[in-house]
Amino acid sequence: MILINGESKEHIEISDRGFQYGDGLFETIEVRDGQAVFLESHLERLDLGCRRLYIPFPGVQLLSLEAKELCRQWHSARAVLKIIVTRGSGGRGYRQPDVIQPTRVLSLHPYPDYPENYREQGIVARFCTTRLGLNPSLAGIKHLNRLEQVMARSEWNDQAIQEGLMLDGNDHVIEGTMTNLFYIKNDRLYTSALTQSGVAGIIRSIIMVLSANHGLPVIEHTFTKDELLSADEVFVCNSIIGIWPIRQIETVRFSVGPITHSIQCRLDKFTGDNCREAGCKK
Amino acid sequence: MILINGESKEHIEISDRGFQYGDGLFETIEVRDGQAVFLESHLERLDLGCRRLYIPFPGVQLLSLEAKELCRQWHSARAVLKIIVTRGSGGRGYRQPDVIQPTRVLSLHPYPDYPENYREQGIVARFCTTRLGLNPSLAGIKHLNRLEQVMARSEWNDQAIQEGLMLDGNDHVIEGTMTNLFYIKNDRLYTSALTQSGVAGIIRSIIMVLSANHGLPVIEHTFTKDELLSADEVFVCNSIIGIWPIRQIETVRFSVGPITHSIQCRLDKFTGDNCREAGCKK
Repeated sequence: MILINGESKEHIEISDRGFQYGDGLFETIEVRDGQAVFLESHLERLDLGCRRLYIPFPGVQLLSLEAKELCRQWHSARAVLKIIVTRGSGGRGYRQPDVIQPTRVLSLHPYPDYPENYREQGIVARFCTTRLGLNPSLAGIKHLNRLEQVMARSEWNDQAIQEGLMLDGNDHVIEGTMTNLFYIKNDRLYTSALTQSGVAGIIRSIIMVLSANHGLPVIEHTFTKDELLSADEVFVCNSIIGIWPIRQIETVRFSVGPITHSIQCRLDKFTGDNCREAGCKK
Repeated sequence: MILINGESKEHIEISDRGFQYGDGLFETIEVRDGQAVFLESHLERLDLGCRRLYIPFPGVQLLSLEAKELCRQWHSARAVLKIIVTRGSGGRGYRQPDVIQPTRVLSLHPYPDYPENYREQGIVARFCTTRLGLNPSLAGIKHLNRLEQVMARSEWNDQAIQEGLMLDGNDHVIEGTMTNLFYIKNDRLYTSALTQSGVAGIIRSIIMVLSANHGLPVIEHTFTKDELLSADEVFVCNSIIGIWPIRQIETVRFSVGPITHSIQCRLDKFTGDNCREAGCKK
C-alpha cells in the first residue's frame, strides 16, 4: 500500500531527485494495532532533516492524516510504515529548482519476523569493514544516501549474525547498519556522539531521556573497538526492533545484564503508554 | 525520451533501491550528431563501479544498443545521455536480495546552453562550505549518493559564479561540484588523488593519458586551498563541458594560460577523432 503525494500509486518519475541523487530523507516507523508508534517524534525529526537539507516540510498535519489513512487499511496487528520525502523533480543537475515541490511517499510493509529470543537472549554482531564517511553536514539526519549501509550489510550472509557494527574513518565505533549502539561499563551508559556521521535515532533519543530521568544520564562520546569490547553490557536499538541486547561481538561474549533489562522495561512501558495515549486521542 | 529496462517508460517502482537508498551508479555522456561520445569509456567505468558495488553489470552490448536506439530518435546536434544502473528492487532493508536484477535507465536531455565564452575566457569559481565525506570504499566511483554535491551547489545563486570547489574533511581541495579540477604550477600539471572521495571522471582520465603522451605527466596528489590559489593556471573538466579554464577563484585571478589552451586543443582533436572513428564503425 503506497501513497505518493496523496494518491494511490506505485511508481515515481525517474526525474525525481530522490532517484537521481538520493536527494531526500526517510523515516521507518512501527505500526501497532493500526497506529504509527511515536509518529510525532518521527515527523519532528523529518522536519528537522528537511530544514538541514532546505527541503520544504510537507507538514505534520498532512503526513499524519496520510499515515492514518494508510494504517486504517492494514489488518495485521503490526506493520512498518516508511515515509520518504524528496526534493521532487526539477533543477539543473545538482542545482535545486527555484521552487521546490517535495515528493512524499508513504508505504506500509509487513512487520519483519524477527525471532522473539533476540530481545530476550540477545544477538550476535560483527564489525564491518565498510566505514562511515566523515561528514558533519549530513551527520545525524536520516537521508537517502545509504550506500555505506548497503555495502556494510553485504559483507556477511551468515544467518547467525544479526547486526554489523560500523566504524568511521577515525576508527571510532558509531552504530549498527540499521541500529544505534549503547554500552554499559561500571554502571555508566554510553553511546556514540553523532557529530561526524551516523543517524540520530528516535529510540536512541527516547532511551536518553528515559535513562536521564532515572538517574542514568547517557554519556555521548567517541570510543574504539577495544573500549566497546571491554563493556559490561551492550545493546542496539531502532524503531522497529526496540532494544536487542548483544550477547556476542566477533568472539567476545557479553551477558544480557540488569541495566539493559531495566532500560528495555522502561522503553516497553513508555511505548505502551504512548500508544494508549495516542489511541485515546484518535 | 527514456528507456527503463529496454521499455519506453517514465516511471520507476518506488521499491527500486536506487530510490530507497541511492543504491546504484550513473554516467552522464555528451551526444554529438546522434553519437554518444566516449561511450566505451563510460561503459567501462560503469562496469568498474558495478564491480565495486557488487551490482551485476547489464553489459556493454545491451547498453550500447539502447543508447544508440535513443540517440537515433534525437534530432538536435547535441544532447546529454544519462545512464543509471541500480541494484533493482528487493532485499530486506539494506540487505541486498539473493538474486540481484539490476534496473537500467537511459534518458536523453537537451544539451545545456552554456555560453561559449566559458571555454575561451574562463569561469569564476568559489570554495564551498559543504565538505566531501572521507570514504575510500566509495571514492572514485560515480554512485547515486550525491547529497554532498546537491548541498554544495545550493550554497550560491549568483549567476556570475559557474562552479563551486569542494574540500574534504582534511582541508584538501578535491574537485568541483560537477567537475574534476587541474592546476598548473611551474610548468607541471596537478590534479587531486581521489583515494578518499571524489569522482574519477572520464575526461580527467583522457587528459591524464593525452598529457602524459605529450611529455606532461599529471601529478596526482593532495593539495590545500593556498596551494591551488598560488597556481599559474587552473581548469575544470567533465564530459559535457570539456574543459573550462578558471579565471577567478573567490578574489584571486588567473590567466587563461598556454598550457590549459594546448590541453584544450588536444582534447578537442582527440574527441573529434574518436567521434569520426566511432561514426565509421556504426
